[in-house]
Amino acid sequence: MGPTLAKAWFRPVNIILINPNTTEAMTARMHAAVAPMIGEGVKLTAITADYGAPSIEGYYDEVFAVPPMIEALKPIANQIDGVVVGCFDDTGVDALRCLLDVPVVGICQAAMQAATVIANKFSIITTLPVSVPALEHLVLRYGFERLCGRVRAADIPVLDLEENLEQATQSIVAELERALVEDGAEAIILGCAGMVELSRSLTERYGVPVIEGVGAAVKLVEGLATLGLSTSTQGGYAPPRKKMYSGILAPYSPSVKS
Amino acid sequence: MGPTLAKAWFRPVNIILINPNTTEAMTARMHAAVAPMIGEGVKLTAITADYGAPSIEGYYDEVFAVPPMIEALKPIANQIDGVVVGCFDDTGVDALRCLLDVPVVGICQAAMQAATVIANKFSIITTLPVSVPALEHLVLRYGFERLCGRVRAADIPVLDLEENLEQATQSIVAELERALVEDGAEAIILGCAGMVELSRSLTERYGVPVIEGVGAAVKLVEGLATLGLSTSTQGGYAPPRKKMYSGILAPYSPSVKS
Amino acid sequence: MGPTLAKAWFRPVNIILINPNTTEAMTARMHAAVAPMIGEGVKLTAITADYGAPSIEGYYDEVFAVPPMIEALKPIANQIDGVVVGCFDDTGVDALRCLLDVPVVGICQAAMQAATVIANKFSIITTLPVSVPALEHLVLRYGFERLCGRVRAADIPVLDLEENLEQATQSIVAELERALVEDGAEAIILGCAGMVELSRSLTERYGVPVIEGVGAAVKLVEGLATLGLSTSTQGGYAPPRKKMYSGILAPYSPSVKS
Amino acid sequence: MGPTLAKAWFRPVNIILINPNTTEAMTARMHAAVAPMIGEGVKLTAITADYGAPSIEGYYDEVFAVPPMIEALKPIANQIDGVVVGCFDDTGVDALRCLLDVPVVGICQAAMQAATVIANKFSIITTLPVSVPALEHLVLRYGFERLCGRVRAADIPVLDLEENLEQATQSIVAELERALVEDGAEAIILGCAGMVELSRSLTERYGVPVIEGVGAAVKLVEGLATLGLSTSTQGGYAPPRKKMYSGILAPYSPSVKS
Amino acid sequence: MGPTLAKAWFRPVNIILINPNTTEAMTARMHAAVAPMIGEGVKLTAITADYGAPSIEGYYDEVFAVPPMIEALKPIANQIDGVVVGCFDDTGVDALRCLLDVPVVGICQAAMQAATVIANKFSIITTLPVSVPALEHLVLRYGFERLCGRVRAADIPVLDLEENLEQATQSIVAELERALVEDGAEAIILGCAGMVELSRSLTERYGVPVIEGVGAAVKLVEGLATLGLSTSTQGGYAPPRKKMYSGILAPYSPSVKS
Amino acid sequence: MGPTLAKAWFRPVNIILINPNTTEAMTARMHAAVAPMIGEGVKLTAITADYGAPSIEGYYDEVFAVPPMIEALKPIANQIDGVVVGCFDDTGVDALRCLLDVPVVGICQAAMQAATVIANKFSIITTLPVSVPALEHLVLRYGFERLCGRVRAADIPVLDLEENLEQATQSIVAELERALVEDGAEAIILGCAGMVELSRSLTERYGVPVIEGVGAAVKLVEGLATLGLSTSTQGGYAPPRKKMYSGILAPYSPSVKS
Repeated sequence: MGPTLAKAWFRPVNIILINPNTTEAMTARMHAAVAPMIGEGVKLTAITADYGAPSIEGYYDEVFAVPPMIEALKPIANQIDGVVVGCFDDTGVDALRCLLDVPVVGICQAAMQAATVIANKFSIITTLPVSVPALEHLVLRYGFERLCGRVRAADIPVLDLEENLEQATQSIVAELERALVEDGAEAIILGCAGMVELSRSLTERYGVPVIEGVGAAVKLVEGLATLGLSTSTQGGYAPPRKKMYSGILAPYSPSVKS
Repeated sequence: MGPTLAKAWFRPVNIILINPNTTEAMTARMHAAVAPMIGEGVKLTAITADYGAPSIEGYYDEVFAVPPMIEALKPIANQIDGVVVGCFDDTGVDALRCLLDVPVVGICQAAMQAATVIANKFSIITTLPVSVPALEHLVLRYGFERLCGRVRAADIPVLDLEENLEQATQSIVAELERALVEDGAEAIILGCAGMVELSRSLTERYGVPVIEGVGAAVKLVEGLATLGLSTSTQGGYAPPRKKMYSGILAPYSPSVKS
Repeated sequence: MGPTLAKAWFRPVNIILINPNTTEAMTARMHAAVAPMIGEGVKLTAITADYGAPSIEGYYDEVFAVPPMIEALKPIANQIDGVVVGCFDDTGVDALRCLLDVPVVGICQAAMQAATVIANKFSIITTLPVSVPALEHLVLRYGFERLCGRVRAADIPVLDLEENLEQATQSIVAELERALVEDGAEAIILGCAGMVELSRSLTERYGVPVIEGVGAAVKLVEGLATLGLSTSTQGGYAPPRKKMYSGILAPYSPSVKS
Repeated sequence: MGPTLAKAWFRPVNIILINPNTTEAMTARMHAAVAPMIGEGVKLTAITADYGAPSIEGYYDEVFAVPPMIEALKPIANQIDGVVVGCFDDTGVDALRCLLDVPVVGICQAAMQAATVIANKFSIITTLPVSVPALEHLVLRYGFERLCGRVRAADIPVLDLEENLEQATQSIVAELERALVEDGAEAIILGCAGMVELSRSLTERYGVPVIEGVGAAVKLVEGLATLGLSTSTQGGYAPPRKKMYSGILAPYSPSVKS
Repeated sequence: MGPTLAKAWFRPVNIILINPNTTEAMTARMHAAVAPMIGEGVKLTAITADYGAPSIEGYYDEVFAVPPMIEALKPIANQIDGVVVGCFDDTGVDALRCLLDVPVVGICQAAMQAATVIANKFSIITTLPVSVPALEHLVLRYGFERLCGRVRAADIPVLDLEENLEQATQSIVAELERALVEDGAEAIILGCAGMVELSRSLTERYGVPVIEGVGAAVKLVEGLATLGLSTSTQGGYAPPRKKMYSGILAPYSPSVKS
Repeated sequence: MGPTLAKAWFRPVNIILINPNTTEAMTARMHAAVAPMIGEGVKLTAITADYGAPSIEGYYDEVFAVPPMIEALKPIANQIDGVVVGCFDDTGVDALRCLLDVPVVGICQAAMQAATVIANKFSIITTLPVSVPALEHLVLRYGFERLCGRVRAADIPVLDLEENLEQATQSIVAELERALVEDGAEAIILGCAGMVELSRSLTERYGVPVIEGVGAAVKLVEGLATLGLSTSTQGGYAPPRKKMYSGILAPYSPSVKS
């Protein structure tokens, strides 16, 4: 069977990478890190939340990260082919899957799926201890509780990754070394979008895959969109029933799925 | 050891039952159903979301149910001893546990805990199929996946329970009978706050416990508050870090835990 | 919706706290610790096993803790509204649920349910290593294997808690500190009825919830009884079939459920 | 490598098959069914509980099945090499493992272990629905929850197997056929000692392995004893601590392990 | 943040799709189905096993599917960037991950990962009942046992998909309809490489995603290779230790990882 | 009920212990260790793989261990009553169960089943880290993930057990001591056939059961064969469908089950 390069009936793929926090510098870093990896004919647009929280650290912040994403994506729902949520808590992914027909994935799920293809066990290194239980819930929900050695916290605030990356890296590296020795981890996942650039250098330094989720998610959505796969509209991701919200939430009222 | 009735050093217990949707009639029905069961010295106050969604049906609506609860509870955080979230999706419970020192519980977790004390296996009957996966995630997260026979949907919109309870009850009853025969269920959980009054009559009709979660949650919070138990501030429920949200979300900015 | 204090059609609630071992001093300590927390109109009666084992340490002792409880409760089955088994192995709870219509709970299940409402993860500190596997089985059966960090033994005999509480506390405290550091525990459960008084002081000393199960169980049963919830008679908790036991066990023969 | 028949330094193996209920006819049937299968040099002695329950049906009866076994086995502890508990609830197995050095196994665990060697999935057919949850707990505890299709009840009292085997067999066969069609079962386990003789005929009739546990348990204990394997005395099966029980339970007081 | 199309420092990606059975027509169909979806700069080469089994149906055939894959891939190990094993049993994937540095994935794992991004629950429809347990083991191992409703068999031999696709499709469709009604499946996975063309038409016919794994796997490997992710060489996928095999297996002896 | 020694209608039991690697010395050591334990009338024949790998270390070697076993066993399928695969990876057990009617068991499954009868928790000590994930998959598949404390590697190549047993034992002992202290293990399993002789001496030295799987598997198969239990032919272990393999694999083509 000879090699084939032909490509057909698929229109250009339009992927949105949305940062649910308001820190544009972080969006820019995510975009810069993954832009070189997107496929020919794929358009990657990075969007930053227009309002809300400058960083997402734990259950409380998560709540307020979803409305700005919905507001940003609703008007362009018909023009896009896939969405990556650029926050390791996979914030709002379920709601966006109801809102949109196209594939939506968070960087946590994408990173863990990639890890389980190239390693028997992985550990996650996130920022603050407050995020550990939320990530453990994702690990469980996605099915990876036996494949995840441990969710570890480097004990650094998210924005230290913007302002003080070098020192933050020290803390990340210390946990990474513990994960390799204590957890039997064969791969490491960087558990925050703000760690996006560390993937390559740490992979080389330690000789094990050190995975960041933004690239994994962008390629995953690119793949699903190319395959023509849409989010199921049966069951839990059915479009939200039409109803009127009141007060300041009125603009978010679900109407017919676009 | 003789019986004891003495009671001491505990101040009156002040419990909030908050309905995260805006339908006041539903709040009133919940309150009426459980008010006769609260203990002496306990004050139960029912609150309805000031704005937002009239009913919560699936992942999308859930997102918008949390801000009004936070806005309502933040100013009175120092005056309350426990909170019940009156929605079977346990919407916003994690965020409220971060915001408040006092015990917070959703009616889903409370109903399932009660069921596992009086039965070896239970099934849940909720409203729409769109809610089933979200409830299955709660079942898993709370630890009850082996004790839950099945999450069933009666295929009725939430507000039909307000407007057309009799007909809705037909659909609920049909699923209940299937659960007893097919699932090995020894108890039934009514999976929507709007079914609160059906508990007693269906229990009598079928001779098995038919549990609704509002009463279970109020008594659970009353108990925990009386015992002086607070939400842990270590780990995932630590108070949110102080930061400024922007735009229309600014009022929800986390400050020092009240 | 205004606060409501009204209470109606519920008769006074009569709860039995039964200690399945014969050590009356332990019963007295349990009773004293929880008596201040019972609700108005609730009568808590503490009963000590009339005969049998002075302490319950492991699988063997457990066997002999059940007959005296059945003998004590059978004659008063019609006069009670709920039962708490005051032993952290939840000894005999299943048999009592078959014998009685009213809710029956052990202090282990009650403590774990409370812990999972106020913390993402808990660890248990029990007395002797011989009890660890039995408790791990309960953790699993009740559904909390992912929410329990670890079951730890302080390596102290149960009756040392009667005779030498201060020194025993040293060992408990050492394990508690390990649990906070090594297990990611956000709450601690004291895994023996004899540790009942330590809850409050250790909570204050460590700033995390340190839960004892007697209070948790009494309030849980009080709540279920107030709600009018009975043990299911369908399936595994059906009343035992009428039959004649022979020999010294004849008095325990199951007759029609009282 | 040529075949070897030599056998050495192992003394004759003395196995006790103990029926925890008082129905001698059932003991005789168990013994008759498995006696032809014991190995040369193995002595199998069948013992019936001297007092207690004529049949064990559910959690309540289970409690009273253990004391007569302990009374029967304690005096001969030094003369035996293994014990089979001939009740599908594996009643008292944990306590006996504490009491005795030698291997102790129940017919439920033995049957399930055998099934998972010769089939990818099995279903269990027991007598009454009241026993299903207890058996499901054993399935879980032994690790077979994913390998067990379903625990089914033929809805026949245990002693009907003595008095009315033919008619009881009709009910068993009906469930067996459902298990093959609905559960994907590749083998069937007969979930009551009283079904011991049905194994061979049903195996032939349906062309799938139909396993009864008495033979499986006897051969398992015979094997372990021959290998010189003893119950661990570390952890949960450590000998019970010496203490005096009071009242009618005094004779069961644990002393030094015999 | 504007859209970006730039692509850089990545060399052309060379992916091998290997069919472990010897049926070239099946390879051709797989290749034809996915070729239109591969990215610019990606070269997809389809290889058929040179010798061995014409179809893989159950545990026995699986064994003999691996040697020809190793023989085919070893000489070109340095020239490839990723491998897709085109058999739904994911046959030999573990061994190939040891042999090769580049990402290797089976179509079963890839299909299930895709399904869990676009649906809350999926069911699998495979060919023969003999394959069901092997697939259930994969479901478990990859972490998807709670997200998979059921593994169903259409009861058709693999090669019927070559010779009699229309009639085979009838059987597949019957199971698909059952899966939607009985399993709560929100997406369907076609559990055999030979069903590759049915994905699009069945998706349209039923309005739910019907996923085939070849495309999913090719895009997954393309993504991982583009990201520069390699199989971990720590732990279970370490290169095989150098040793000499004897007899007809000598050519497969592991040498230094190429 | 008196003891019985009679034995009847069972023909002599013919068991094959097959070593899937080509190292005859290891076969001899396995055979010597277990020969004294086989029952009267049982014939144990040890066979070494005629060709293939001298030792099995990880996923790659495993692949090549199965063909020689099939070649050796196929011609004698009608003359044997059970098969033990003498490799702790349980290599090829599934394929052999399809090929043969008689019970087939690997030493890993047998050792773990034995351990769970005599201990609440066990740990495994294997040779190289490369084998740990493969063994963890077996632990999971067989159902023992909660009963296994940890799979540990002593970091010694398999053939060091042949050539340098004394030094290898040092490494094994070091892990064993850690398992007892850190894992809560009540029994230890030696995770390689080459450790077969260490069972007795380490059991005595540490006072806990140290189990090797060869003896456990031989006695298990002897028991099943004596009971007349065969591998199920329904479902996953159905005989392989008749088909012609091509090339050097032609001799392994499945024909009608012998």
